[in-house]
Amino acid sequence: MNNAVILAGGQGKRMKSDIPKPMFKVLGEPMLEWVIKACESADLSSLCIVKGFMAEYIDEYLNGRYETVLQSERLGTGHAVMQAREFMEKNSGGNTLVLCGDAPFIDSDTIKKSLEMHINEDNSITVITAQIEHPHGYGRIVRNKDTNRLNSIVEEKDATEAQREIKEVNSGAYWFKTADLLEYLGELTQNNSQHEYYLTDSVFIAINKGRNVNAYISENENVVLGANDRKGLLELNTVARMAVIEKHLENGVEFTCTDGVVIGRDVKIEAGTEILAGTQLLGNTVIGKDCVIGPNCIIDDCVIEDGVQLNTVQAYKSQIDAGVKIGPWVHIRPGSHIKSGVKIGDFVEIKNSTIGEGTAVAHLTYVGDSDVGKKVNFGCGTVTVNYDGIVKSRCEIGDNCFIGCNTNLIAPVKLGKAVYTAAGTTITKDVPDYALAIDRGTVQIKEGYSLRKLKKRLEKA
Amino acid sequence: MNNAVILAGGQGKRMKSDIPKPMFKVLGEPMLEWVIKACESADLSSLCIVKGFMAEYIDEYLNGRYETVLQSERLGTGHAVMQAREFMEKNSGGNTLVLCGDAPFIDSDTIKKSLEMHINEDNSITVITAQIEHPHGYGRIVRNKDTNRLNSIVEEKDATEAQREIKEVNSGAYWFKTADLLEYLGELTQNNSQHEYYLTDSVFIAINKGRNVNAYISENENVVLGANDRKGLLELNTVARMAVIEKHLENGVEFTCTDGVVIGRDVKIEAGTEILAGTQLLGNTVIGKDCVIGPNCIIDDCVIEDGVQLNTVQAYKSQIDAGVKIGPWVHIRPGSHIKSGVKIGDFVEIKNSTIGEGTAVAHLTYVGDSDVGKKVNFGCGTVTVNYDGIVKSRCEIGDNCFIGCNTNLIAPVKLGKAVYTAAGTTITKDVPDYALAIDRGTVQIKEGYSLRKLKKRLEKA
Amino acid sequence: MNNAVILAGGQGKRMKSDIPKPMFKVLGEPMLEWVIKACESADLSSLCIVKGFMAEYIDEYLNGRYETVLQSERLGTGHAVMQAREFMEKNSGGNTLVLCGDAPFIDSDTIKKSLEMHINEDNSITVITAQIEHPHGYGRIVRNKDTNRLNSIVEEKDATEAQREIKEVNSGAYWFKTADLLEYLGELTQNNSQHEYYLTDSVFIAINKGRNVNAYISENENVVLGANDRKGLLELNTVARMAVIEKHLENGVEFTCTDGVVIGRDVKIEAGTEILAGTQLLGNTVIGKDCVIGPNCIIDDCVIEDGVQLNTVQAYKSQIDAGVKIGPWVHIRPGSHIKSGVKIGDFVEIKNSTIGEGTAVAHLTYVGDSDVGKKVNFGCGTVTVNYDGIVKSRCEIGDNCFIGCNTNLIAPVKLGKAVYTAAGTTITKDVPDYALAIDRGTVQIKEGYSLRKLKKRLEKA
Repeated sequence: MNNAVILAGGQGKRMKSDIPKPMFKVLGEPMLEWVIKACESADLSSLCIVKGFMAEYIDEYLNGRYETVLQSERLGTGHAVMQAREFMEKNSGGNTLVLCGDAPFIDSDTIKKSLEMHINEDNSITVITAQIEHPHGYGRIVRNKDTNRLNSIVEEKDATEAQREIKEVNSGAYWFKTADLLEYLGELTQNNSQHEYYLTDSVFIAINKGRNVNAYISENENVVLGANDRKGLLELNTVARMAVIEKHLENGVEFTCTDGVVIGRDVKIEAGTEILAGTQLLGNTVIGKDCVIGPNCIIDDCVIEDGVQLNTVQAYKSQIDAGVKIGPWVHIRPGSHIKSGVKIGDFVEIKNSTIGEGTAVAHLTYVGDSDVGKKVNFGCGTVTVNYDGIVKSRCEIGDNCFIGCNTNLIAPVKLGKAVYTAAGTTITKDVPDYALAIDRGTVQIKEGYSLRKLKKRLEKA
Repeated sequence: MNNAVILAGGQGKRMKSDIPKPMFKVLGEPMLEWVIKACESADLSSLCIVKGFMAEYIDEYLNGRYETVLQSERLGTGHAVMQAREFMEKNSGGNTLVLCGDAPFIDSDTIKKSLEMHINEDNSITVITAQIEHPHGYGRIVRNKDTNRLNSIVEEKDATEAQREIKEVNSGAYWFKTADLLEYLGELTQNNSQHEYYLTDSVFIAINKGRNVNAYISENENVVLGANDRKGLLELNTVARMAVIEKHLENGVEFTCTDGVVIGRDVKIEAGTEILAGTQLLGNTVIGKDCVIGPNCIIDDCVIEDGVQLNTVQAYKSQIDAGVKIGPWVHIRPGSHIKSGVKIGDFVEIKNSTIGEGTAVAHLTYVGDSDVGKKVNFGCGTVTVNYDGIVKSRCEIGDNCFIGCNTNLIAPVKLGKAVYTAAGTTITKDVPDYALAIDRGTVQIKEGYSLRKLKKRLEKA
Repeated sequence: MNNAVILAGGQGKRMKSDIPKPMFKVLGEPMLEWVIKACESADLSSLCIVKGFMAEYIDEYLNGRYETVLQSERLGTGHAVMQAREFMEKNSGGNTLVLCGDAPFIDSDTIKKSLEMHINEDNSITVITAQIEHPHGYGRIVRNKDTNRLNSIVEEKDATEAQREIKEVNSGAYWFKTADLLEYLGELTQNNSQHEYYLTDSVFIAINKGRNVNAYISENENVVLGANDRKGLLELNTVARMAVIEKHLENGVEFTCTDGVVIGRDVKIEAGTEILAGTQLLGNTVIGKDCVIGPNCIIDDCVIEDGVQLNTVQAYKSQIDAGVKIGPWVHIRPGSHIKSGVKIGDFVEIKNSTIGEGTAVAHLTYVGDSDVGKKVNFGCGTVTVNYDGIVKSRCEIGDNCFIGCNTNLIAPVKLGKAVYTAAGTTITKDVPDYALAIDRGTVQIKEGYSLRKLKKRLEKA
């Protein structure tokens, strides 16, 4: 069986926050999660995460999902892998992939193809590399001129001028024969200026022993990218952000201006939908075809059917059916289901409610904890009074109801079919089908009232 | 008379939507419309649009504005032009401009100047070209070393290494003597790997016949740009977007951050106005001087006078007079006229209403279908109840009225001059000048009511 | 004593607005202010601003802060400095720094270090220069090959091809021995094509007199940047904008997409806080650690404590304590203090009010001129009626109050502790501790009311 050991013990001092570096986020997910998902997509399920700095963050995040080991002192990448010795010994007959938990763009294709080379060539070590335009700072891959196989990895500071021209660089990810890796780990030393155990040294050890060692060049040049500071992290986010947008462009999604557009990796969008500037699509959001989403929407974990138009909407954990038109400035809170043909206008909040087909909620309204029928019309200023300070209760509003402006519906309450409520009425008890509910006094007219006030007011203004 | 034939039959498979390629939009207008407008600005009014794939979209969009012909099979650009044979025969004494319906940046200046060359040189064909930095993929213009006239057009795949260095490329737009074009069309063949009729072949035919052929280099290098996929379309949008912004910068409009700023081509803005990030100005919007528009406004088909400040406003088909200050988060819907000196605060919708000089609508208010006088003050939560479920009616509110908070005005209703309405009142009938309208019961105080509730509530929280 | 003379008389014709060029803004501050602040940071307090075009703008802006002189005719930079002759004569024993009021990126470090060279080398003139990638258009610094000291400044149009390759350029800022400058000013002539007095000529005069002249190369290449048109001004804003963001990145602030992000120079943010796209942080805003601010916030002159979350909030001159969560779409107006643990939901305006610890204002509410206690719950649609058209009054709301939906609180009014108000009630007088205040009639049910209406309505729709 093949293993993966993910090194996630680093600190990231220049990030200036006390969380482990692999827990910093790219497109909203910890870099460690990117690495784990790449393994999972490559059908590697035997993972060991080496934690170190602020290990509790890693534990809390993983929540037991995978085996972890603690590197209590940080003495280099070799030392980190040593902590996983027991984990590897359980499966020493296979191969082990060592990955950096803070190099998020490793991908399953690279993992699979490099393993293929590793096995086909019967390599002891297969280094994953990439050809990049600006190799400065990376370890260069020196190949044998005759065999074209890996000869050595030379760090920037040790490289000759000729070697600095080499554009193939080390990603920090390697396939090892597990048994060989266990052997090499025992031979690593701290004989270097940093007094650290370097995993890279195992390459030299293997070559000295005459073992097969080679380098697999990934087609994805981003496999080498990591971040040491917030600026680098911003760059990773930008790379990831644009890659996701590009994928959707290829799928026929329309973008006319991508400024401020952030789309999570797991979001699905069908062709013909247009995403406008400033829009964030997050979580497991799924969007149908021919929608217009944006500008400035946040859609998180929602299902949006075909032909939906959302203008400056924030929607969370909800479903919006075909042909719905919402906005501008509408807040759809979790647990809502907006059925087809609904129109929701400005300054409306919907929370944990079902809004039936063809219903209209035009403006300045709060519908919370409610089951609303079809073709209901909500007057402006309607409030479902769902909270009495102690419990939350539901409102039930039948088909074809016509709710007057500034109506309060004190939950629990049920309006039957086609109920009318008069503007300004507070409904405290159920209303039967086809009835009007009204609570209104007599408007008194006090003539001449404003004559004296007016002068004062105009002086003031 | 001179004609133009616009080729609009293409599919754009890689766009992944079933609409004709020229109907994809750049800055909100179909590319076909860009090409038509360039013709119109160049005083070419005899246009024939060749439609093909999903021709009904073209028909629906043009709505009879111009003559169209159907290319029922798509057998190349030459075949497309053949469909317009009858159209051209009506005016065979003049010249015909052939344009690509999906190359939106052709401009009237280029059309006019290339026609000038075409006529002055008595050319049979004048190819419109441009010098571009990255000619890869375009047909290269090979000129005679002695005469400097067009010798041939060489496609990328057929070009020698030397020819690939040529930076002058074919835009796909050509002037023909109409009679000559009709002649060449008869001589085009399908003798090529794609079995298509290529319009480009007419250049070879003409040269073989010893006719005058030349190439006009447009000063506008964007004339060659088209899009084959959504990514290309995004690039066209970016080119167009930045060109419009640059034009406004030259005119003295201020931008301190152009992220998310999208301005339609027909929008007019006077010097000294500042446009903030995330703002979309669309349609025939006209904006005066010394305004501040943004961030995140959408202004569509509006007239905005001098000194207006709009902070996060969406306004459609409305007029906003000098010195008005609106926002943040205000929705001005079609048919509104906001007169000078008005202040509108947050979470306000105005629809199909006139708001008189100096009136204030501070917050959380809906004014719809209303005629509001001068210096009116709207309390928070005011609602004009303009819809009874069957008809919409208007409210009339006189000068100097003072509308109490959470007032409902049930339309049709008229408030006279300086009318006061008490907070929470629902007004169902007209109120005379200077009167107060009040509907209020007596507040009952139930002492000790919350003593038992409070404990429960605090436990809950 | 050392002086600074700031040239602020220029017009900026291509800006197309009638304000002096140094009054155009970069990151919200006039360029002149940037220059003044650089002087102040370098402990230069004796400043004279030379005004000219539309001098009244400069006067109004400075409001007497510093001495000004008027250049009534614009006859060149030398002539501008001549206007400050009297100012300089008061301190002729020291040195004078001449700065361009429209080159905003001069910095205190450059001022101090160039003065150091000026004094150490006993220079008559020390020109402040920078090495830049694209020197086109700037005066080139020609140095003596042997001494490496300044030999001459050559304008673009007079430069040889070799000189055009020089990348060290003149910033237009100079240190002079004050007495020498006064001498040189007397010797400047208008013998040039523009008939202007050029300050640059003083360099030639000094060299001819055998005086020490040298050039100080600033480490900040932006010292040379100025703007002649709105496009240039946009570029200055972009440079400044990205420099501020980069500073915060270094400090550990997180940005995952900087589109539309604008942060004023004086804003302070602690590490671990995340700023989302479209957010503007202005004035003297101070933000603690571990906050999430954005997207699309405007925060101006606010103090934001640790762990605050603001989603699409505009807040002005207010304080928001630790752990507060606000948004989306909330307007915090000046004079507000939101205490720790408060939650404010959507479509809420808070103005000039204190909101006590743990209070909740969930939706569609206006709290103005109010003092709100702890753990109060505001129902949806609550309005503090703080304005009677003549005066504004305050509401006082005790701890643990529970305000019913669509309640009006007519100020001045005081609710005691744990007061309940019934939904839809208008409170006109004080309510004692633990009481319920209710004004509610009886809801009348008119059965069958909608039977006839419904048909009509459905037909309509």
